[in-house]
Amino acid sequence: MRVLVTGADGFVGRALAAQLAGGALPVSTLTLTDRQFTAPPQASEASVVTGDLADPTLLTALLAPGFDLVFHLASIPGSLAEHDAVAGERANLSVPLALGRHLAGRRGPGNAATRLIFASSIAVYGPLGVEAVSVGTPTRPALSYGAHKLMTETYLTDLTRRGDLSAVSLRLPGVVARPPVNSGHGSAFMSLLFHRIAAGEAYDCPVPANSCCWWLSRKACVEALIHAARLGPQAGTVIQPPALLLTVAEVAEAAACLTGRPARIRWGDDATLTRLFGSMPPLDASTASAAGFAADADAEALARAAFEGVSQ
Amino acid sequence: MRVLVTGADGFVGRALAAQLAGGALPVSTLTLTDRQFTAPPQASEASVVTGDLADPTLLTALLAPGFDLVFHLASIPGSLAEHDAVAGERANLSVPLALGRHLAGRRGPGNAATRLIFASSIAVYGPLGVEAVSVGTPTRPALSYGAHKLMTETYLTDLTRRGDLSAVSLRLPGVVARPPVNSGHGSAFMSLLFHRIAAGEAYDCPVPANSCCWWLSRKACVEALIHAARLGPQAGTVIQPPALLLTVAEVAEAAACLTGRPARIRWGDDATLTRLFGSMPPLDASTASAAGFAADADAEALARAAFEGVSQ
Repeated sequence: MRVLVTGADGFVGRALAAQLAGGALPVSTLTLTDRQFTAPPQASEASVVTGDLADPTLLTALLAPGFDLVFHLASIPGSLAEHDAVAGERANLSVPLALGRHLAGRRGPGNAATRLIFASSIAVYGPLGVEAVSVGTPTRPALSYGAHKLMTETYLTDLTRRGDLSAVSLRLPGVVARPPVNSGHGSAFMSLLFHRIAAGEAYDCPVPANSCCWWLSRKACVEALIHAARLGPQAGTVIQPPALLLTVAEVAEAAACLTGRPARIRWGDDATLTRLFGSMPPLDASTASAAGFAADADAEALARAAFEGVSQ
Repeated sequence: MRVLVTGADGFVGRALAAQLAGGALPVSTLTLTDRQFTAPPQASEASVVTGDLADPTLLTALLAPGFDLVFHLASIPGSLAEHDAVAGERANLSVPLALGRHLAGRRGPGNAATRLIFASSIAVYGPLGVEAVSVGTPTRPALSYGAHKLMTETYLTDLTRRGDLSAVSLRLPGVVARPPVNSGHGSAFMSLLFHRIAAGEAYDCPVPANSCCWWLSRKACVEALIHAARLGPQAGTVIQPPALLLTVAEVAEAAACLTGRPARIRWGDDATLTRLFGSMPPLDASTASAAGFAADADAEALARAAFEGVSQ
């Protein structure tokens, strides 16, 4: 099948492209696009298109050949989008709507609608209480990022209901361990933890040790994206994939254990970060689990996967 | 205050314009816009702008003077939008998003954000069960119309959260008694009932006598819109105004009673219309009621208000 990955130079996108090039799906042509490529993709056979999807000419040209499967990962992270509302709306709302609109009604082999896997976010829920969160939990996004992801979900679900598209939105939690650059993700501390522990450095973690977070390694995230592509449309148009609910201390301990050195962490008390990312209730992903989605097996598996690509 | 009404030639728009011209709010300038005006507005002092809000030049020119309060009523009805998806998306999604984007960040007297009253719809909920519906009920729109209204709500709520706008979305049920033209509203039977009874004609009602519908007269609808404009932003950005839950037979009886003639109705069994509009559960509008919103008092008050402007 003809596959397109947007945001293909990103943290998740690069790993997904490598998996696709490695045969995770029966790919006939693989096209990778991003605003820039910081390094050659690990997919030597892929066509690479560099440019901004917000440019209508580029988008039209990019989609002209037709695709059977599109992974839309391109996005501006939450806190960055909050500070640059215009860029945030363009990347996180206008582009996915335009992409959905372009793909709608196009048909592949067997008259099949284009399959679109959209990287949505748990930011659609907004402030969470103590009750378990499931895909049916009411959504009250507290950031433009989450509002735009939610609007896109609604749009893609409607195009799918009409039969014009076969879209599924995955509500992803923070994925670890992102590169230790200022990415604009509020949840960056969840990744920095691994980098500092891997380097044997002390870390001033901004949240308290008992902060409960949802954890997903890049490996498990890529597996979820690929699994979503394989599913039939009857699995639903919005999926809350499972993630591990662990305290930052539990994760730090598992990571330190792998290095054979004790973790040197000073715990902080950033109220905003703790509220947004460190006070997570249980996650009821039973629907997704029944459909074959899986989180990392445990804290050790998470840490092992998170360490992949992290310098130790 | 400087007030703009879109969809001002529509069934609700004309009545709202008349109320505003009559002093329902302290209006300094009143601007009415619609794609066409079928009759001069009942607001002789108003500025009238005829054109399509989907035209960026018209929208920019229309909004250039600045407004303190905007009622956005312009919309393409549900079943019409379902059949003409392009026109539906333009009117029901692109236009309200562009309107919100244009108004965001503009300031009126006292540095106040523009107040925007958006005519949303109960179509945002989608298929309803037997449990009472409130503003917190999960939304699963079953028509593009409802999906686009929901996306607009999410967008306007986010702009309001950012402090760039002061928007409130009212989830309106079918409003009676609309003119007996083919308007593209699936709920048209709820209005036709009044017209046929008023004319003393027989009516083949497409749904069974015991179909439970939510009823709101145009008078009560206009009062809700005006009340929403008066409220402070603390009342919330999405409001489910109260409506009467009555069977079509109860409403027909109240209407016939006012005419002094028995109603001549043959009841039908249209499963789709019954499912979409005739199987409504109780409506829990307690939040809106506490904020001063009111439905018609009872079936007789509803019928009396619905007969206003209906030839008898």
